[in-house]
Amino acid sequence: MNTEEAWNEVARRANEQRDLQGLMAVAQWDQQVMLPPAGAAARGRQLAAISGIRHERLTDPRLGALLEQLAEGTEDPVRDASVRLFLKEHRQAVRTPSRLVRAFAEARARAHATWMEARAARDFTPFAPSLTELVGLIRETVDARREPHHADPYDVLLDEYDPGSTVAALDPMFARLSAELGAFLDTLRDRPHPPGFDGAWPVPAQRALNEAVVQALGFDLTRRGRMDHAEHPFTVGVAPDDVRLTTHLYPDALLSGLSGTIHETGHGLYEQGLPKDWYGLPVGAPASFGLHESQSRFWENVIGRSLPFFRWLQGPLQEHLGGDIPSPEQLYAAANRVERSLIRIFADEVTYNLHIVVRYQLERALLSGALTVADLPDAWDDGYEAVLGVRADNPTDGVLQDVHWSAGLFAYFPSYTLGNLYAASILARLEEDLPDLWTRVEAGDFTPILGWLRAHIHSKGHLVHAPAILQDALGERDHVADLMAYIRGRHGALYSVY
Amino acid sequence: MNTEEAWNEVARRANEQRDLQGLMAVAQWDQQVMLPPAGAAARGRQLAAISGIRHERLTDPRLGALLEQLAEGTEDPVRDASVRLFLKEHRQAVRTPSRLVRAFAEARARAHATWMEARAARDFTPFAPSLTELVGLIRETVDARREPHHADPYDVLLDEYDPGSTVAALDPMFARLSAELGAFLDTLRDRPHPPGFDGAWPVPAQRALNEAVVQALGFDLTRRGRMDHAEHPFTVGVAPDDVRLTTHLYPDALLSGLSGTIHETGHGLYEQGLPKDWYGLPVGAPASFGLHESQSRFWENVIGRSLPFFRWLQGPLQEHLGGDIPSPEQLYAAANRVERSLIRIFADEVTYNLHIVVRYQLERALLSGALTVADLPDAWDDGYEAVLGVRADNPTDGVLQDVHWSAGLFAYFPSYTLGNLYAASILARLEEDLPDLWTRVEAGDFTPILGWLRAHIHSKGHLVHAPAILQDALGERDHVADLMAYIRGRHGALYSVY
Repeated sequence: MNTEEAWNEVARRANEQRDLQGLMAVAQWDQQVMLPPAGAAARGRQLAAISGIRHERLTDPRLGALLEQLAEGTEDPVRDASVRLFLKEHRQAVRTPSRLVRAFAEARARAHATWMEARAARDFTPFAPSLTELVGLIRETVDARREPHHADPYDVLLDEYDPGSTVAALDPMFARLSAELGAFLDTLRDRPHPPGFDGAWPVPAQRALNEAVVQALGFDLTRRGRMDHAEHPFTVGVAPDDVRLTTHLYPDALLSGLSGTIHETGHGLYEQGLPKDWYGLPVGAPASFGLHESQSRFWENVIGRSLPFFRWLQGPLQEHLGGDIPSPEQLYAAANRVERSLIRIFADEVTYNLHIVVRYQLERALLSGALTVADLPDAWDDGYEAVLGVRADNPTDGVLQDVHWSAGLFAYFPSYTLGNLYAASILARLEEDLPDLWTRVEAGDFTPILGWLRAHIHSKGHLVHAPAILQDALGERDHVADLMAYIRGRHGALYSVY
Repeated sequence: MNTEEAWNEVARRANEQRDLQGLMAVAQWDQQVMLPPAGAAARGRQLAAISGIRHERLTDPRLGALLEQLAEGTEDPVRDASVRLFLKEHRQAVRTPSRLVRAFAEARARAHATWMEARAARDFTPFAPSLTELVGLIRETVDARREPHHADPYDVLLDEYDPGSTVAALDPMFARLSAELGAFLDTLRDRPHPPGFDGAWPVPAQRALNEAVVQALGFDLTRRGRMDHAEHPFTVGVAPDDVRLTTHLYPDALLSGLSGTIHETGHGLYEQGLPKDWYGLPVGAPASFGLHESQSRFWENVIGRSLPFFRWLQGPLQEHLGGDIPSPEQLYAAANRVERSLIRIFADEVTYNLHIVVRYQLERALLSGALTVADLPDAWDDGYEAVLGVRADNPTDGVLQDVHWSAGLFAYFPSYTLGNLYAASILARLEEDLPDLWTRVEAGDFTPILGWLRAHIHSKGHLVHAPAILQDALGERDHVADLMAYIRGRHGALYSVY
């Protein structure tokens, strides 16, 4: 086969993988949003069947041979990048024995059940054996997948969620961030908290408000996407023209509902902005979880918790909720309160990354063997005490609070902090490129922001890894310095510490 | 491989086929009910990818060899029946060249577009070349698939939708039915029409009413199923525990909305009643389109247009619509008016089957070559004139009214009339087995009816073909006589012709 023929066959197979992934995405979305409860067993079977077929086709030796042939170079950067990404996926799938894939799926199912049981009992014991088993299987997977360029075993996992990130890069960045955030937090000690606010609004009115905001930010909710209710909100890109947000609104939690919606909108805008010409090829996909998270957090936090945003929001609030609505200053204060707390998902922007740092250290220690599962609960509590200055009085509010480890997701947490870091640097650059940025936000004109993100981030797909996309978009930047400057400017001012 | 091993492998592959079919069903349901409009192109790709994979795996020679081995007998009726059905499906797929499958898919896409164009222009001309192409491809398919037991080429197609039905059986049945219905219609000539009724009710209130009716009939709308809006209503059984009805309600069409809902409920009750132990095997599927249609029509017409049903319905109508609601007698009269009309989907129970007879004769003639596509419009109009005594003044209300032929669906129409015939025989037998049937209906107690259908029809899956299921359930019956007796009893009485 000549290069052209080989490429056509590889592209056909890449497109098939993407189409099957799209079907899985619909089926998973449906599972969370639409599925009648008794249908769960059949859905599990259906998803297992299609995963098996995807894996079978991904590991086909013929595909490997074609990719090896093309890896010598096609003189086309889009094809070269696609071949690199597809070959990496192929090799990792081939390196992971089916026995391990099956054992991992089964262990995850057990771990999910024992995690639920342990949470209900507020006792780590029932979960310990499952987690030990999972950690063992992850170490086996890491051994099987490890390549020469992985300096640290944890790099094997980072390579999956955040290709381009390494322990060597994250370690110093996280250490500095942790120290600076800790010092900043100390300056807030004994400062009076800004006030929150109370109030309850009917969910249908809130839904109309949330839809209006989603559309104002530039997400196409009518032709290329939709938004539904889900118990645990998420976003899925079935295809760039079929992007689905979910949200969960409560009568008495206006701000957190809206924040959640804006967070998902950020994910959705990225998916709707992916390069359509590359749809079906590996380069047409998002570049990393960290970059994805930078988009959700940029809109949720940087824009969505800003005072100009809340000033603009008065109009939609008046229109959809009417009557006695909170002022921009009330909303801004309530949205940016800082508190040393136990639960990551309720954490503010200042303490959030400290929650991640604790998890990052613990999962690295579990993976290297420096920490055993038996010692994990104490290590968790000690880590929180050291980094955040708080200690859970029960494991449900401590080591059992997140679903990730029970789902076998290790090295996923750093994506969240990478997202926050990247979002701060994006803001710093945007303020240079769009000097009237905040005037535009206050006027509800989000077009130039979205246009910038489309041009510099979304449309790049996965042609290069996330760090290179950011380097091209932002120039050389110190993400930690950008995040700290942003936090000092917002939370420091709110608490009058400067 | 010994028989046990061969069976296990065949069962594994059958289950995989069923799981992929379930995924396709979700994706197709989603396409009609949830998909953002711009997502249609990606959905087309996704469905094509999974169809291709199903076909590839269905035609695997290794599967054929295993099935041939097991076809010698497994000493287990469930396995034997599964092997027979799976082998038939495998052989038909193998016999149909991929070239033909692709050409057919492409021709259907073209035909759908030209059919829409022709309908809009009220001119058959744009559709003619596409239909000619489709008829040619169907004749090729029939030639490729024809087996010695297919006495008539049309039997090849019937074998797909209604295994067990043949031209030899349908021809005399349809001829007799046509003659008897025609004679009955003549007796109605010049009789005064029973009155209809006017009124408009808000769609949300109608939706609550329709949901109440669906649940009263025994469909599990909370744990094992759901009901949504669709432009063109349909029902899909993703799995027996995941059955999805759709309906289309209009403010000023209370009765037709409700009839549509009850029709889909009949389909849904069949799907929810399929034998769960056989889920994944070919014997766990519905036995035929005709039998499926017997269930929808039994509930829609036999029960749902009966006077006792409308008497029971007064309660739900009062509860959900309130105010000025039509009386049982008004509803009964309006729901059973008989009219010689042009459009099949709006036809009453008496004339409906005559619309089918016209189509059955025409598609047989097209398939045999006795009729050319060029002569089809006149043949249609002449057929309507002869059988129904009406003539369309434009092809959109005539030969272009149905989507079926443009979708390549030939030999599908007879299922509708088979459904009506079977439903009448089921009623006749039910009135013997449940002497208080109509008292129960009037009391809103549908449990014994559903119990009977579950026991005698639904739970049989496809262990034997539909005619054998009916024979076991009903004994030897004359379906035409049963249908005519039912019509004379209901419509004859309403029009006071006896």
